[in-house]
Amino acid sequence: MERLKYIGQDLARSDALEKVTGKALFAADMKLPNMLYGKILRSPLAHARIKRVDPSEAEKIPGVKAVLTREDIDRKFTPYGRAVKDQNIVATDRVRYIGDPVAAVAAVDISAAEKALSLIQVDYEELPANFTIDEAIAPHSFLIHDEMLIEPILKDIVTPVQGTNICNHSKLRHGDTERGFRESDFIFEDIFTTAPNQHGALEPHSTIARVFPGPRVEVITNNQNPSSIQIQLSQIFHLPQSSIRIVVPYLGGGFGSKLGLRLEPLAIALALKAGQPVKMMLTREEEFFTISRHGSKTMIKTGVKKDGTFVAREMAIYLDGGAYADFGPIVSKNVSFAGGGPYRIPHLKIDSYCVYTNKVPAGAMRGFGIPQAAWAYEQQVDLIAERLGMDPLRIREKNLLRNGDLFHTGTPIDDVGFDQVLREAATGIDWGSDKRRDLDKGRTRGKGISLVLKNTGTPTASNADVRMNADGSVVLMCNTVEMGQGCRTIFRQILAEKLRLPLERIVVQDPDTHGAPFDFGTFSSRSTFHMGNAVLLAAENLKKELLGSASVLLDAEEEDLLFEEGVIRMKNAPNKSISFGQAVIGSGVNRGSLRASGLYQTRGSTDRETGQGAASFFWMEGSGGVEVEVDKETGEVKTVKYIGVTNVGRAINPTTVRQEILGCIVMGLGGAFTEQMVYNDKGLLLNPNFIDYKIPTVKDLPSEMIGDFAEVPNRKGPYGAKGMGEISLVPPLPAIANAIHQATGIRIKDLPITPEKIFQRLKEGEK
Amino acid sequence: MERLKYIGQDLARSDALEKVTGKALFAADMKLPNMLYGKILRSPLAHARIKRVDPSEAEKIPGVKAVLTREDIDRKFTPYGRAVKDQNIVATDRVRYIGDPVAAVAAVDISAAEKALSLIQVDYEELPANFTIDEAIAPHSFLIHDEMLIEPILKDIVTPVQGTNICNHSKLRHGDTERGFRESDFIFEDIFTTAPNQHGALEPHSTIARVFPGPRVEVITNNQNPSSIQIQLSQIFHLPQSSIRIVVPYLGGGFGSKLGLRLEPLAIALALKAGQPVKMMLTREEEFFTISRHGSKTMIKTGVKKDGTFVAREMAIYLDGGAYADFGPIVSKNVSFAGGGPYRIPHLKIDSYCVYTNKVPAGAMRGFGIPQAAWAYEQQVDLIAERLGMDPLRIREKNLLRNGDLFHTGTPIDDVGFDQVLREAATGIDWGSDKRRDLDKGRTRGKGISLVLKNTGTPTASNADVRMNADGSVVLMCNTVEMGQGCRTIFRQILAEKLRLPLERIVVQDPDTHGAPFDFGTFSSRSTFHMGNAVLLAAENLKKELLGSASVLLDAEEEDLLFEEGVIRMKNAPNKSISFGQAVIGSGVNRGSLRASGLYQTRGSTDRETGQGAASFFWMEGSGGVEVEVDKETGEVKTVKYIGVTNVGRAINPTTVRQEILGCIVMGLGGAFTEQMVYNDKGLLLNPNFIDYKIPTVKDLPSEMIGDFAEVPNRKGPYGAKGMGEISLVPPLPAIANAIHQATGIRIKDLPITPEKIFQRLKEGEK
Repeated sequence: MERLKYIGQDLARSDALEKVTGKALFAADMKLPNMLYGKILRSPLAHARIKRVDPSEAEKIPGVKAVLTREDIDRKFTPYGRAVKDQNIVATDRVRYIGDPVAAVAAVDISAAEKALSLIQVDYEELPANFTIDEAIAPHSFLIHDEMLIEPILKDIVTPVQGTNICNHSKLRHGDTERGFRESDFIFEDIFTTAPNQHGALEPHSTIARVFPGPRVEVITNNQNPSSIQIQLSQIFHLPQSSIRIVVPYLGGGFGSKLGLRLEPLAIALALKAGQPVKMMLTREEEFFTISRHGSKTMIKTGVKKDGTFVAREMAIYLDGGAYADFGPIVSKNVSFAGGGPYRIPHLKIDSYCVYTNKVPAGAMRGFGIPQAAWAYEQQVDLIAERLGMDPLRIREKNLLRNGDLFHTGTPIDDVGFDQVLREAATGIDWGSDKRRDLDKGRTRGKGISLVLKNTGTPTASNADVRMNADGSVVLMCNTVEMGQGCRTIFRQILAEKLRLPLERIVVQDPDTHGAPFDFGTFSSRSTFHMGNAVLLAAENLKKELLGSASVLLDAEEEDLLFEEGVIRMKNAPNKSISFGQAVIGSGVNRGSLRASGLYQTRGSTDRETGQGAASFFWMEGSGGVEVEVDKETGEVKTVKYIGVTNVGRAINPTTVRQEILGCIVMGLGGAFTEQMVYNDKGLLLNPNFIDYKIPTVKDLPSEMIGDFAEVPNRKGPYGAKGMGEISLVPPLPAIANAIHQATGIRIKDLPITPEKIFQRLKEGEK
Repeated sequence: MERLKYIGQDLARSDALEKVTGKALFAADMKLPNMLYGKILRSPLAHARIKRVDPSEAEKIPGVKAVLTREDIDRKFTPYGRAVKDQNIVATDRVRYIGDPVAAVAAVDISAAEKALSLIQVDYEELPANFTIDEAIAPHSFLIHDEMLIEPILKDIVTPVQGTNICNHSKLRHGDTERGFRESDFIFEDIFTTAPNQHGALEPHSTIARVFPGPRVEVITNNQNPSSIQIQLSQIFHLPQSSIRIVVPYLGGGFGSKLGLRLEPLAIALALKAGQPVKMMLTREEEFFTISRHGSKTMIKTGVKKDGTFVAREMAIYLDGGAYADFGPIVSKNVSFAGGGPYRIPHLKIDSYCVYTNKVPAGAMRGFGIPQAAWAYEQQVDLIAERLGMDPLRIREKNLLRNGDLFHTGTPIDDVGFDQVLREAATGIDWGSDKRRDLDKGRTRGKGISLVLKNTGTPTASNADVRMNADGSVVLMCNTVEMGQGCRTIFRQILAEKLRLPLERIVVQDPDTHGAPFDFGTFSSRSTFHMGNAVLLAAENLKKELLGSASVLLDAEEEDLLFEEGVIRMKNAPNKSISFGQAVIGSGVNRGSLRASGLYQTRGSTDRETGQGAASFFWMEGSGGVEVEVDKETGEVKTVKYIGVTNVGRAINPTTVRQEILGCIVMGLGGAFTEQMVYNDKGLLLNPNFIDYKIPTVKDLPSEMIGDFAEVPNRKGPYGAKGMGEISLVPPLPAIANAIHQATGIRIKDLPITPEKIFQRLKEGEK
């Protein structure tokens, strides 16, 4: 086996120093000459028809350069949406949630813009609203969208139920659940719910649009998916893709919130109208009114043999999509085939739904539906174990998927290490001894474990271009967005390894649709695997070019050459060598630079009716082990110790792998204990700020928190690596609930697990 | 022959609308967050040793973030210079001209920076200075540079005479001039001089440097040569090329002034020291103290037969290089082989010298030495004709180079049309009738013609990358700088033609060393030819890729496919076709984009001792015809009519070709009549502003001014085109002098031709 020099090194992220010294530039930092500031007028009503929008008073405010209303949009710019074309740049016919953009203003400063917003007159005619999944799917409920127009490239993936509020219904049909339940000794039926969450990225959405004659549009934006929004914007504004340039500087946290179009269409429309560059940046409050994680309701019914063998399962998973579909239909599709979890279940039937409600839209968020499903299935495993008197670890080990097993979509699963990650998590919390321990002062401790599976978006493609300069240094051009996950460090390691170059001679450029080639986007834990493979291929192609050039310069066959650190040497005459730089320069006049590309494509698709097929190009495995301490007088829960273990295939940079897992765990703890978007009965979000919507602080972390990984190589991954950026946030949710149950006997089925809920249940138990 | 749709179209420049509406962005417009302003302290002495530089008082000024002195530079950063490494970021040992940068300050605003400058204490010890070529080349003259270190890649081109002030001596040896003179019937010996000129570009030099940890440097600058300065800066700062990114927005006029390193090293050094981005922008006055066109002195000796046949010539051309060599050695090399002009001269010997003086450095300027040489040789032709009683047109026609003739460097000349351009210019001014005409009020008219030749830098290379998006639109990435010459329009035409795409689907990106591949630079009228060829090759390669993809998708052989407007069609089944976009997407999962590259390299070199060899990959031909009116009472000259004719090979965009020729003519008129940098006897430039240094205004233009072109195709050029951006400014200089001679009998041999000189000569004549 190849001895590796850079792969597997513990490295500080290449962006770390820039960020801690404040030198890194984010879209939020950028200013352009002559730039205006854009602000949004938002709907005060959850559902209403717009009768009149009058911008005339607003337009009189000094410094106001453009007021954008439906007059500027309707029938001029095409509606958009990642899966369903259900959104306009500003509302044209109706508003559909409190916070829905109705108009926007661009002005020389924010105060002029805000003053103008207050003078835009809008008359509404209120409509019936649906605030819950149940309301929205009830027969004859008021339709939030009259018609659902599917994005053509997703027509085999997204299946709306026209005439209802269901914007997607995805199905998995594997085996025969009726027969399975007949053959089962026990059947368990439970309902679990999760609350809508906010992504809480540190950097708010920020976009600057400028328009040149043509028009030609340049957008500096913090978006996770430059190539995709370039295409979408070209459709909205009826411009060639080459006339829309997207540049993405460092991005200060995305977690999926920055995956779709956010401020981009608005900023462009304002810039087009004003004829000046326009910057828009959301306030923290506006972030809460923009995009969220789906709240959910899951009915799960599982049949098992008395020895604990899983036989059959039916799941109905409803995702609360809010007012616009965004990525919701794709999230629900994802849940339909990955929501069955990491177990062999011969008979499985899943129906997953994405449902419109008159609330803040929900879209992609780290985990992409898996947290909602795993919250259900990983608690039910414990319920089953308890009933059967089995150890929760044993029942998982008995049923978990092993390499070669048939997955729920009918294809074999490979290169997974569910057993390793589960065992390591259990060992990490000393599973087996003292699962429950009563302490003094009404405190009691319990342990919990969980095991989850996640897929990656399939099929997709990534392109990478590398250029070597005449001094042998290298620039990588790709559209993977550095959003704190450390992708640039990973890519530099891959290039350094393959090209035998020191890391400091390799630079990764900011994503730029006009400098770097197409990529499917930075999501679904796909970049290390997909872009990493593309980078590897580009490096291999560059290496071939260098060897070809060297063979001319050295007058030697390529097979007689050695590719060494910075030089290409003749095997038989080791003192005859040329540097990489000389190979770039070539034999004629200096070419100056040499470029090579790598394209990596994955294959796979599933049947619309059955969900059967190759659903994911690789699978991710995460486990959690936790010990909690419950204060039975207050219902307060303290996480004493948490260990998260993920199979990463190979840790290209163990440091960032651990950081990523730890970050996931923290986000998982937030989802477990505190995070929920709370609405009143008019559909108004009550806690759109970080005082009332609590994300974990350092004080909320376990005394001991471990992010660890297994390395069961993925044979298709670059150096065996695969994605791991999301999955570790899922296990905390059910593991903590399972531990609380161990500690107290209380089973919390509704996220988040608040002290109030435990206190209430403890009180009920006392009765 | 291919019928062309886009090539040859009269198009407005694609940057025109942006520029006239004020939306185009220049480096001068840019601002970055946290940006400082840099200003330069300049030497008040023409030549002095620096004894002490004390920044301590300056550093105390509030808002000052960095004071850069030789302490920061010396032995840390490598000296630089395009040909001779004779320049430091700020002076370290000596100052060498009035205006030489001694120190620099970066501060939060310009006034703080300027206040700090005034507090930097510098002690000098004055040294003897050389202000003229003659002083500088006199034996035992004080050396301005003790040693001349040549840029290694130019070691075969640049030949300094160590121990003198001559930083280059280039030679042409063709035939045997001694024999030639022996065989001549007449020998003519003349001396001509030209004044140093200022480029006078509208946009001053502007650079913003920012430094990220690493360090990694990003520079936004108005430089004509991003790839070259990337390499030079990497050498100065000892950084990999990949750590230095150069981005060039629109550039507001260069004319060679923006070809070398200007503010970039200073801005980077200040940014490194201050730890914040630094912007530097020259004032108009500072422009005059930065770079200039070489003043010159040319001794020209020509032997002819009495029938007018040129037999032999010796030329000694001295260029006044100022304090630093910059491009001077290359300019003088250029003159050595192109300075013989467009005539068959069997015996030719040229010695050209670049000489240091203690004045503003001289470098590249439109024409690159040819104006100085042609000023001499094209007047001497008229002197010869007069003496032989021949018509100036006839003697030129008799001797001019025709296709297949051996050029002075010993290789045949091809694809030239000297006869056409000369004849057209002569016809344009109705040559032959009334060469001299006396009018009333002491006014008299005369006509003049001239013919010149220019080479292009050889060998060089250009790379272009094109990317097609999945909607069939195209982005071109190349490092040719749009500086008003219309290159982007040309490249879009080439792409549109070859790829059969509408122009509006093609966008050309700003030069960016980290987005676009290496190019030799935007100079030497090389871009249409070299980059145009690279773009054409890239388009051909892209076309091949599209056809390859289409052949898979259509299941057809490539030769059975038709490449049409936006679609690829089957010859035998014309209704079976796929769009370019589908071909980009490909047969598997959407690739999203398809990239192709083009590399164009020219070959050629000349012998260092003899100048013999393939000196230029193509040759440019320009002619001028002029009628002037001289007021014999005041010496004032009015240009009545001017026609400039250039062979462009093929006019890809006739509109911009004519504009370029007209622009050249205006610049030539300035050089002819008014432009000269005037120094006092201390070496102080006296007229560093546009009041005292006069460039032509609309009022100074001829009543009739025609820019016209011939189209003798260049078989290597893209669609037959070749370069033409400089040559047309040369013919006005000698043509006007020749016309004045026709009108008055006065021969002005020293540029510029001021009324004072004519008046003085008229007075002398009256005596």
